[in-house]
Amino acid sequence: MTLQFTSEQRLDGEVLERGFTLGEIPGFLWTPASAAAPTPLILLGLPPLGLGRMYPRLLDRARSAVADGLAAATLELPGSGDRPRWPALDQARADLRRVMTAGEPVTEAIIDALTLPLVDRAAAEARTALDALLALPELTGPVGYSGGVISIGVRLAATEPRIAAAGLFAGSFVPRAILEEARRVTIPLHVLLQWDDEGNDRQAALDLFDAFGSAEKSLHANMGGHTGVPQHAGEDAASFFGRHLR
Amino acid sequence: MTLQFTSEQRLDGEVLERGFTLGEIPGFLWTPASAAAPTPLILLGLPPLGLGRMYPRLLDRARSAVADGLAAATLELPGSGDRPRWPALDQARADLRRVMTAGEPVTEAIIDALTLPLVDRAAAEARTALDALLALPELTGPVGYSGGVISIGVRLAATEPRIAAAGLFAGSFVPRAILEEARRVTIPLHVLLQWDDEGNDRQAALDLFDAFGSAEKSLHANMGGHTGVPQHAGEDAASFFGRHLR
Repeated sequence: MTLQFTSEQRLDGEVLERGFTLGEIPGFLWTPASAAAPTPLILLGLPPLGLGRMYPRLLDRARSAVADGLAAATLELPGSGDRPRWPALDQARADLRRVMTAGEPVTEAIIDALTLPLVDRAAAEARTALDALLALPELTGPVGYSGGVISIGVRLAATEPRIAAAGLFAGSFVPRAILEEARRVTIPLHVLLQWDDEGNDRQAALDLFDAFGSAEKSLHANMGGHTGVPQHAGEDAASFFGRHLR
Repeated sequence: MTLQFTSEQRLDGEVLERGFTLGEIPGFLWTPASAAAPTPLILLGLPPLGLGRMYPRLLDRARSAVADGLAAATLELPGSGDRPRWPALDQARADLRRVMTAGEPVTEAIIDALTLPLVDRAAAEARTALDALLALPELTGPVGYSGGVISIGVRLAATEPRIAAAGLFAGSFVPRAILEEARRVTIPLHVLLQWDDEGNDRQAALDLFDAFGSAEKSLHANMGGHTGVPQHAGEDAASFFGRHLR
Protein backbone atom coordinates (compact mmCIF):
# COMPACT_ATOMS: atom_id res chain seq x y z
CA MET A 1 0.00 0.00 0.00
CA THR A 2 1.24 3.46 -0.89
CA LEU A 3 1.58 6.30 1.58
CA GLN A 4 0.33 9.57 0.12
CA PHE A 5 0.33 12.87 1.94
CA THR A 6 -3.01 14.69 1.54
CA SER A 7 -2.55 17.79 3.71
CA GLU A 8 0.21 19.69 5.45
CA GLN A 9 0.20 22.43 8.06
CA ARG A 10 2.57 23.90 10.61
CA LEU A 11 1.16 24.27 14.15
CA ASP A 12 2.72 27.06 16.26
CA GLY A 13 5.83 26.80 14.11
CA GLU A 14 6.81 23.71 16.18
CA VAL A 15 4.87 20.79 14.75
CA LEU A 16 4.48 19.72 11.13
CA GLU A 17 1.14 17.94 10.78
CA ARG A 18 0.58 15.89 7.63
CA GLY A 19 -2.59 14.02 6.80
CA PHE A 20 -2.02 10.92 4.71
CA THR A 21 -3.70 7.93 3.18
CA LEU A 22 -2.13 4.49 3.28
CA GLY A 23 -4.03 2.82 0.48
CA GLU A 24 -7.59 3.57 1.62
CA ILE A 25 -6.70 4.18 5.27
CA PRO A 26 -6.55 7.77 6.54
CA GLY A 27 -3.96 8.81 9.10
CA PHE A 28 -1.84 11.64 10.49
CA LEU A 29 1.88 12.12 10.96
CA TRP A 30 3.25 14.76 13.35
CA THR A 31 6.97 15.57 13.25
CA PRO A 32 9.14 18.36 14.64
CA ALA A 33 8.92 21.31 12.22
CA SER A 34 12.69 21.50 12.22
CA ALA A 35 14.70 18.41 13.13
CA ALA A 36 18.33 17.87 12.24
CA ALA A 37 18.29 14.07 12.57
CA PRO A 38 15.67 11.35 11.95
CA THR A 39 13.16 11.19 14.82
CA PRO A 40 11.97 8.06 16.69
CA LEU A 41 8.25 7.46 16.21
CA ILE A 42 5.35 6.78 18.58
CA LEU A 43 2.41 5.05 16.92
CA LEU A 44 -0.73 6.36 18.66
CA GLY A 45 -3.40 3.66 18.84
CA LEU A 46 -7.05 4.64 18.46
CA PRO A 47 -10.21 3.51 20.19
CA PRO A 48 -12.97 2.51 17.75
CA LEU A 49 -14.52 5.99 17.90
CA GLY A 50 -13.13 7.39 14.67
CA LEU A 51 -10.12 9.58 14.04
CA GLY A 52 -12.24 12.74 13.70
CA ARG A 53 -13.77 12.43 17.14
CA MET A 54 -10.40 11.61 18.73
CA TYR A 55 -8.46 14.32 16.87
CA PRO A 56 -8.19 16.91 19.70
CA ARG A 57 -6.86 14.35 22.20
CA LEU A 58 -4.50 12.86 19.63
CA LEU A 59 -3.15 16.28 18.77
CA ASP A 60 -2.41 16.95 22.47
CA ARG A 61 -0.46 13.72 22.68
CA ALA A 62 1.31 14.40 19.37
CA ARG A 63 2.35 17.89 20.53
CA SER A 64 3.72 16.39 23.74
CA ALA A 65 5.68 13.76 21.75
CA VAL A 66 7.15 16.40 19.43
CA ALA A 67 8.07 18.60 22.41
CA ASP A 68 10.02 15.58 23.70
CA GLY A 69 11.89 15.22 20.41
CA LEU A 70 9.74 12.38 19.07
CA ALA A 71 7.35 12.00 16.12
CA ALA A 72 3.81 10.59 16.33
CA ALA A 73 1.52 8.95 13.82
CA THR A 74 -1.95 7.44 13.89
CA LEU A 75 -4.13 5.35 11.60
CA GLU A 76 -7.92 4.99 11.43
CA LEU A 77 -9.08 1.56 12.63
CA PRO A 78 -10.87 -0.78 10.20
CA GLY A 79 -14.63 -0.25 10.43
CA SER A 80 -14.25 3.16 12.16
CA GLY A 81 -14.67 6.79 11.11
CA ASP A 82 -14.97 7.26 7.33
CA ARG A 83 -13.73 3.75 6.54
CA PRO A 84 -16.21 1.17 5.16
CA ARG A 85 -18.45 -0.40 7.78
CA TRP A 86 -17.45 -3.87 8.96
CA PRO A 87 -20.76 -5.74 9.42
CA ALA A 88 -19.37 -8.54 11.61
CA LEU A 89 -17.83 -5.96 13.95
CA ASP A 90 -21.02 -3.89 14.04
CA GLN A 91 -22.91 -7.07 14.91
CA ALA A 92 -20.47 -7.88 17.75
CA ARG A 93 -20.86 -4.33 19.12
CA ALA A 94 -24.64 -4.61 18.94
CA ASP A 95 -24.46 -7.93 20.80
CA LEU A 96 -22.28 -6.34 23.48
CA ARG A 97 -24.66 -3.40 23.93
CA ARG A 98 -27.62 -5.76 24.12
CA VAL A 99 -26.20 -7.95 26.91
CA MET A 100 -24.84 -4.97 28.84
CA THR A 101 -28.19 -3.15 28.64
CA ALA A 102 -29.94 -6.32 29.78
CA GLY A 103 -27.45 -6.69 32.65
CA GLU A 104 -26.44 -10.11 31.31
CA PRO A 105 -22.86 -11.41 31.53
CA VAL A 106 -20.52 -10.52 28.66
CA THR A 107 -19.53 -13.93 27.30
CA GLU A 108 -16.11 -14.87 25.98
CA ALA A 109 -17.72 -15.47 22.57
CA ILE A 110 -18.84 -11.83 22.41
CA ILE A 111 -15.45 -10.53 23.58
CA ASP A 112 -13.67 -12.71 21.00
CA ALA A 113 -15.97 -11.62 18.16
CA LEU A 114 -15.58 -7.99 19.17
CA THR A 115 -11.81 -8.11 19.41
CA LEU A 116 -9.92 -10.88 17.64
CA PRO A 117 -10.73 -10.04 13.98
CA LEU A 118 -10.10 -6.35 14.76
CA VAL A 119 -6.72 -7.18 16.34
CA ASP A 120 -5.66 -9.28 13.33
CA ARG A 121 -6.53 -6.61 10.81
CA ALA A 122 -5.45 -3.53 12.77
CA ALA A 123 -2.09 -5.07 13.73
CA ALA A 124 -1.42 -6.00 10.09
CA GLU A 125 -2.29 -2.44 9.03
CA ALA A 126 -0.04 -1.00 11.73
CA ARG A 127 2.84 -3.09 10.39
CA THR A 128 2.21 -1.84 6.85
CA ALA A 129 2.08 1.72 8.18
CA LEU A 130 5.43 1.20 9.94
CA ASP A 131 6.96 -0.10 6.69
CA ALA A 132 5.82 3.05 4.88
CA LEU A 133 6.53 5.55 7.67
CA LEU A 134 9.99 4.25 8.55
CA ALA A 135 10.94 4.53 4.86
CA LEU A 136 10.61 8.33 5.24
CA PRO A 137 14.01 9.95 5.80
CA GLU A 138 12.72 12.03 8.72
CA LEU A 139 11.68 8.99 10.81
CA THR A 140 13.66 6.22 12.47
CA GLY A 141 13.25 3.42 14.95
CA PRO A 142 12.93 2.48 17.71
CA VAL A 143 9.16 2.78 17.62
CA GLY A 144 6.82 3.19 20.57
CA TYR A 145 3.17 2.13 20.63
CA SER A 146 0.73 4.05 22.80
CA GLY A 147 -2.91 3.69 23.79
CA GLY A 148 -5.86 2.58 21.71
CA VAL A 149 -7.54 -0.82 21.96
CA ILE A 150 -5.33 -2.64 24.46
CA SER A 151 -5.58 -6.01 22.70
CA ILE A 152 -4.09 -4.49 19.53
CA GLY A 153 -1.28 -3.07 21.64
CA VAL A 154 -0.64 -6.47 23.20
CA ARG A 155 -0.50 -8.15 19.77
CA LEU A 156 1.95 -5.56 18.44
CA ALA A 157 4.08 -5.56 21.59
CA ALA A 158 4.29 -9.37 21.42
CA THR A 159 5.02 -9.73 17.71
CA GLU A 160 6.36 -6.55 16.08
CA PRO A 161 10.12 -6.32 16.65
CA ARG A 162 10.37 -2.65 15.63
CA ILE A 163 8.27 -1.70 18.67
CA ALA A 164 10.67 -1.17 21.56
CA ALA A 165 8.30 0.12 24.27
CA ALA A 166 4.53 0.27 24.69
CA GLY A 167 2.19 2.43 26.75
CA LEU A 168 -1.12 0.58 27.15
CA PHE A 169 -4.44 1.78 28.53
CA ALA A 170 -6.41 -0.91 30.36
CA GLY A 171 -9.84 0.11 29.20
CA SER A 172 -11.58 -2.62 27.26
CA PHE A 173 -12.38 -6.32 27.28
CA VAL A 174 -9.42 -8.61 26.64
CA PRO A 175 -9.95 -12.04 25.08
CA ARG A 176 -8.34 -15.04 26.75
CA ALA A 177 -6.20 -15.59 23.63
CA ILE A 178 -4.73 -12.09 24.04
CA LEU A 179 -4.02 -12.75 27.73
CA GLU A 180 -1.91 -15.70 26.52
CA GLU A 181 -0.10 -13.48 24.01
CA ALA A 182 0.66 -11.07 26.87
CA ARG A 183 2.92 -13.69 28.46
CA ARG A 184 5.18 -13.48 25.40
CA VAL A 185 5.65 -9.71 25.62
CA THR A 186 9.18 -8.83 26.76
CA ILE A 187 9.53 -5.11 25.89
CA PRO A 188 9.20 -2.39 28.57
CA LEU A 189 5.55 -1.56 29.31
CA HIS A 190 3.80 1.38 30.92
CA VAL A 191 0.19 0.41 31.71
CA LEU A 192 -2.45 2.96 32.69
CA LEU A 193 -5.52 1.88 34.64
CA GLN A 194 -8.41 4.11 35.63
CA TRP A 195 -9.32 2.61 39.00
CA ASP A 196 -13.04 3.37 38.72
CA ASP A 197 -13.41 2.92 34.96
CA GLU A 198 -17.09 2.13 34.44
CA GLY A 199 -16.37 0.24 31.21
CA ASN A 200 -13.54 -1.83 32.57
CA ASP A 201 -13.11 -4.84 34.82
CA ARG A 202 -10.40 -3.86 37.31
CA GLN A 203 -9.47 -7.42 38.22
CA ALA A 204 -9.14 -8.37 34.55
CA ALA A 205 -6.80 -5.41 34.06
CA LEU A 206 -4.68 -6.48 37.06
CA ASP A 207 -4.56 -10.05 35.73
CA LEU A 208 -3.42 -8.77 32.33
CA PHE A 209 -0.71 -6.64 33.94
CA ASP A 210 0.43 -9.67 35.92
CA ALA A 211 0.52 -11.82 32.77
CA PHE A 212 2.96 -9.64 30.79
CA GLY A 213 6.34 -11.33 30.50
CA SER A 214 8.30 -8.06 30.52
CA ALA A 215 11.03 -7.62 33.12
CA GLU A 216 10.26 -3.89 33.13
CA LYS A 217 6.58 -3.09 33.46
CA SER A 218 4.82 -0.41 35.48
CA LEU A 219 1.15 -0.10 36.33
CA HIS A 220 -0.07 3.43 36.98
CA ALA A 221 -3.58 3.46 38.44
CA ASN A 222 -5.39 6.75 38.90
CA MET A 223 -8.80 7.73 40.16
CA GLY A 224 -11.75 8.47 37.94
CA GLY A 225 -13.52 7.03 34.94
CA HIS A 226 -12.40 6.16 31.45
CA THR A 227 -11.89 9.72 30.22
CA GLY A 228 -10.61 11.09 33.53
CA VAL A 229 -6.91 10.30 33.11
CA PRO A 230 -5.12 13.07 35.04
CA GLN A 231 -2.58 15.26 33.30
CA HIS A 232 0.32 14.01 35.44
CA ALA A 233 -0.36 10.48 34.12
CA GLY A 234 0.38 11.78 30.63
CA GLU A 235 3.61 13.33 31.90
CA ASP A 236 4.73 10.03 33.46
CA ALA A 237 3.95 8.23 30.18
CA ALA A 238 5.98 10.83 28.29
CA SER A 239 8.95 10.18 30.61
CA PHE A 240 8.57 6.46 29.89
CA PHE A 241 8.82 6.96 26.11
CA GLY A 242 11.63 9.45 26.56
CA ARG A 243 13.65 6.85 28.48
CA HIS A 244 13.11 4.12 25.92
CA LEU A 245 13.00 5.84 22.52
CA ARG A 246 15.46 8.70 22.68
CA MET B 1 10.85 18.20 73.56
CA THR B 2 13.71 20.40 72.44
CA LEU B 3 15.31 20.27 69.01
CA GLN B 4 19.09 20.52 69.24
CA PHE B 5 21.42 20.45 66.26
CA THR B 6 24.35 18.11 66.84
CA SER B 7 26.23 18.25 63.54
CA GLU B 8 26.33 20.33 60.38
CA GLN B 9 27.92 19.81 57.00
CA ARG B 10 27.52 21.12 53.47
CA LEU B 11 27.27 18.44 50.75
CA ASP B 12 28.48 19.49 47.27
CA GLY B 13 27.78 23.10 48.25
CA GLU B 14 24.08 22.38 47.53
CA VAL B 15 22.68 20.67 50.60
CA LEU B 16 23.00 21.66 54.24
CA GLU B 17 22.79 18.48 56.33
CA ARG B 18 22.19 18.89 60.05
CA GLY B 19 21.99 16.05 62.55
CA PHE B 20 19.70 16.78 65.48
CA THR B 21 18.19 15.32 68.60
CA LEU B 22 14.57 15.90 69.51
CA GLY B 23 14.68 15.07 73.20
CA GLU B 24 16.33 11.63 73.00
CA ILE B 25 15.38 10.97 69.36
CA PRO B 26 18.07 11.35 66.69
CA GLY B 27 17.23 12.74 63.27
CA PHE B 28 18.49 14.62 60.23
CA LEU B 29 17.37 17.77 58.47
CA TRP B 30 18.43 18.53 54.89
CA THR B 31 17.80 22.00 53.48
CA PRO B 32 19.00 23.92 50.43
CA ALA B 33 22.43 25.41 51.27
CA SER B 34 21.17 28.76 50.02
CA ALA B 35 17.44 29.44 49.97
CA ALA B 36 15.89 32.90 49.85
CA ALA B 37 12.49 31.88 51.20
CA PRO B 38 11.27 29.27 53.70
CA THR B 39 11.16 25.78 52.11
CA PRO B 40 8.30 23.27 52.24
CA LEU B 41 9.30 20.07 54.05
CA ILE B 42 9.05 16.37 53.23
CA LEU B 43 9.15 14.12 56.29
CA LEU B 44 10.92 10.92 55.23
CA GLY B 45 9.49 7.91 57.05
CA LEU B 46 11.83 5.12 58.09
CA PRO B 47 11.48 1.35 58.08
CA PRO B 48 12.39 -0.25 61.44
CA LEU B 49 15.96 -0.91 60.28
CA GLY B 50 17.68 2.01 61.98
CA LEU B 51 18.67 5.39 60.65
CA GLY B 52 22.31 4.38 60.21
CA ARG B 53 21.55 1.49 57.92
CA MET B 54 19.09 3.59 55.88
CA TYR B 55 21.31 6.67 55.70
CA PRO B 56 22.61 6.25 52.10
CA ARG B 57 19.09 5.79 50.65
CA LEU B 58 17.70 8.64 52.77
CA LEU B 59 20.47 10.93 51.60
CA ASP B 60 19.64 10.15 47.95
CA ARG B 61 16.01 11.06 48.56
CA ALA B 62 16.97 14.18 50.53
CA ARG B 63 19.28 15.35 47.72
CA SER B 64 16.47 14.84 45.23
CA ALA B 65 14.05 16.85 47.43
CA VAL B 66 16.53 19.69 47.81
CA ALA B 67 17.21 19.70 44.06
CA ASP B 68 13.43 20.20 43.66
CA GLY B 69 13.43 23.18 46.04
CA LEU B 70 12.16 21.23 49.06
CA ALA B 71 13.63 20.33 52.44
CA ALA B 72 13.66 16.83 53.97
CA ALA B 73 13.84 15.53 57.52
CA THR B 74 13.79 12.14 59.18
CA LEU B 75 13.50 10.76 62.69
CA GLU B 76 14.64 7.44 64.17
CA LEU B 77 11.70 5.14 64.98
CA PRO B 78 11.07 4.10 68.60
CA GLY B 79 12.87 0.82 69.32
CA SER B 80 15.17 1.17 66.30
CA GLY B 81 18.83 2.06 65.75
CA ASP B 82 20.51 3.51 68.84
CA ARG B 83 17.23 4.17 70.65
CA PRO B 84 16.34 2.02 73.68
CA ARG B 85 14.98 -1.42 72.82
CA TRP B 86 11.22 -1.80 73.04
CA PRO B 87 10.67 -5.30 74.47
CA ALA B 88 7.01 -5.64 73.36
CA LEU B 89 7.98 -4.74 69.80
CA ASP B 90 10.95 -7.11 69.83
CA GLN B 91 8.59 -9.82 71.03
CA ALA B 92 6.10 -9.11 68.23
CA ARG B 93 8.93 -9.26 65.66
CA ALA B 94 10.16 -12.54 67.10
CA ASP B 95 6.59 -13.91 66.89
CA LEU B 96 6.36 -12.82 63.25
CA ARG B 97 9.67 -14.44 62.35
CA ARG B 98 8.65 -17.65 64.12
CA VAL B 99 5.33 -18.08 62.26
CA MET B 100 6.85 -17.08 58.91
CA THR B 101 9.75 -19.52 59.35
CA ALA B 102 7.28 -22.25 60.28
CA GLY B 103 5.14 -21.38 57.25
CA GLU B 104 2.19 -20.67 59.54
CA PRO B 105 -0.35 -17.93 58.81
CA VAL B 106 0.44 -14.44 60.12
CA THR B 107 -2.49 -13.74 62.45
CA GLU B 108 -4.18 -10.38 62.91
CA ALA B 109 -3.05 -10.45 66.55
CA ILE B 110 0.59 -10.56 65.47
CA ILE B 111 0.11 -7.80 62.87
CA ASP B 112 -1.65 -5.61 65.44
CA ALA B 113 1.04 -6.17 68.10
CA LEU B 114 3.74 -5.46 65.55
CA THR B 115 2.16 -2.29 64.24
CA LEU B 116 -0.42 -0.48 66.35
CA PRO B 117 1.74 0.57 69.35
CA LEU B 118 4.50 1.60 66.91
CA VAL B 119 2.03 3.69 64.87
CA ASP B 120 0.72 5.46 68.00
CA ARG B 121 4.17 6.35 69.26
CA ALA B 122 5.85 7.15 65.94
CA ALA B 123 2.95 9.33 64.76
CA ALA B 124 3.02 11.28 68.04
CA GLU B 125 6.77 11.77 67.69
CA ALA B 126 6.37 12.89 64.06
CA ARG B 127 3.87 15.53 65.22
CA THR B 128 6.30 16.77 67.86
CA ALA B 129 9.05 16.87 65.26
CA LEU B 130 6.82 18.93 62.94
CA ASP B 131 6.13 21.39 65.79
CA ALA B 132 9.84 21.87 66.32
CA LEU B 133 10.92 21.83 62.65
CA LEU B 134 8.22 24.20 61.41
CA ALA B 135 9.26 26.68 64.12
CA LEU B 136 12.58 27.06 62.27
CA PRO B 137 12.56 30.15 60.04
CA GLU B 138 13.96 28.22 57.06
CA LEU B 139 11.04 25.74 56.92
CA THR B 140 7.36 26.16 56.11
CA GLY B 141 4.29 24.10 55.31
CA PRO B 142 2.73 22.44 53.47
CA VAL B 143 4.42 19.23 54.58
CA GLY B 144 4.73 16.00 52.64
CA TYR B 145 5.16 12.56 54.16
CA SER B 146 7.07 9.92 52.26
CA GLY B 147 7.81 6.23 52.71
CA GLY B 148 8.58 4.29 55.84
CA VAL B 149 6.16 1.96 57.63
CA ILE B 150 2.97 2.42 55.61
CA SER B 151 0.65 2.22 58.63
CA ILE B 152 2.42 5.22 60.20
CA GLY B 153 1.95 7.08 56.92
CA VAL B 154 -1.75 6.23 56.87
CA ARG B 155 -2.21 7.46 60.47
CA LEU B 156 -0.43 10.74 59.73
CA ALA B 157 -2.21 11.24 56.39
CA ALA B 158 -5.56 10.67 58.11
CA THR B 159 -5.00 12.82 61.17
CA GLU B 160 -2.21 15.40 60.77
CA PRO B 161 -3.60 18.50 59.04
CA ARG B 162 -0.17 19.96 58.25
CA ILE B 163 0.52 17.02 55.90
CA ALA B 164 -0.81 17.99 52.47
CA ALA B 165 0.37 15.04 50.37
CA ALA B 166 1.77 11.59 51.10
CA GLY B 167 3.88 9.12 49.15
CA LEU B 168 3.39 5.66 50.63
CA PHE B 169 5.25 2.42 49.97
CA ALA B 170 3.07 -0.69 50.18
CA GLY B 171 5.59 -2.95 51.80
CA SER B 172 4.45 -4.27 55.16
CA PHE B 173 1.51 -5.79 56.98
CA VAL B 174 -1.40 -3.42 57.60
CA PRO B 175 -3.74 -3.96 60.57
CA ARG B 176 -7.48 -3.94 59.93
CA ALA B 177 -7.79 -0.83 62.15
CA ILE B 178 -5.41 1.04 59.85
CA LEU B 179 -7.38 -0.06 56.78
CA GLU B 180 -10.37 1.64 58.41
CA GLU B 181 -8.32 4.81 59.03
CA ALA B 182 -7.38 4.76 55.34
CA ARG B 183 -11.01 5.47 54.42
CA ARG B 184 -10.72 8.82 56.22
CA VAL B 185 -7.67 9.97 54.27
CA THR B 186 -8.54 12.76 51.83
CA ILE B 187 -5.16 14.26 50.86
CA PRO B 188 -3.50 13.42 47.51
CA LEU B 189 -1.64 10.10 47.66
CA HIS B 190 1.09 8.51 45.59
CA VAL B 191 1.34 4.80 46.43
CA LEU B 192 4.24 2.61 45.32
CA LEU B 193 3.83 -1.15 45.09
CA GLN B 194 6.57 -3.61 44.20
CA TRP B 195 4.55 -6.18 42.27
CA ASP B 196 6.71 -9.16 43.31
CA ASP B 197 7.63 -7.96 46.79
CA GLU B 198 8.46 -11.12 48.71
CA GLY B 199 7.53 -9.52 52.05
CA ASN B 200 4.23 -8.08 50.90
CA ASP B 201 0.74 -9.33 50.17
CA ARG B 202 -0.20 -7.82 46.80
CA GLN B 203 -3.93 -8.19 47.28
CA ALA B 204 -3.74 -6.52 50.70
CA ALA B 205 -1.89 -3.62 49.11
CA LEU B 206 -4.53 -3.27 46.37
CA ASP B 207 -7.29 -3.39 49.02
CA LEU B 208 -5.55 -0.65 50.99
CA PHE B 209 -5.20 1.51 47.88
CA ASP B 210 -8.88 0.98 47.14
CA ALA B 211 -9.82 1.95 50.71
CA PHE B 212 -8.20 5.41 50.68
CA GLY B 213 -10.86 8.12 50.61
CA SER B 214 -8.72 10.53 48.59
CA ALA B 215 -10.16 11.91 45.34
CA GLU B 216 -6.60 12.05 43.99
CA LYS B 217 -4.65 8.86 44.49
CA SER B 218 -2.28 7.04 42.16
CA LEU B 219 -0.89 3.54 42.46
CA HIS B 220 2.45 2.96 40.75
CA ALA B 221 3.32 -0.73 40.58
CA ASN B 222 6.74 -1.80 39.35
CA MET B 223 8.45 -5.11 38.92
CA GLY B 224 10.90 -6.57 41.36
CA GLY B 225 11.25 -7.14 45.07
CA HIS B 226 11.16 -4.85 48.07
CA THR B 227 14.46 -3.09 47.40
CA GLY B 228 14.14 -3.10 43.60
CA VAL B 229 12.20 0.15 43.16
CA PRO B 230 13.36 1.50 39.78
CA GLN B 231 14.87 4.96 39.53
CA HIS B 232 12.03 6.28 37.38
CA ALA B 233 9.60 5.49 40.22
CA GLY B 234 11.54 7.93 42.39
CA GLU B 235 11.32 10.54 39.66
CA ASP B 236 7.53 10.13 39.40
CA ALA B 237 7.25 10.47 43.19
CA ALA B 238 9.36 13.63 43.06
CA SER B 239 6.97 15.09 40.44
CA PHE B 240 4.08 14.26 42.78
CA PHE B 241 5.60 16.20 45.69
CA GLY B 242 6.60 19.02 43.36
CA ARG B 243 2.97 19.38 42.23
CA HIS B 244 1.57 19.42 45.75
CA LEU B 245 4.16 21.15 47.92
CA ARG B 246 5.72 23.86 45.78
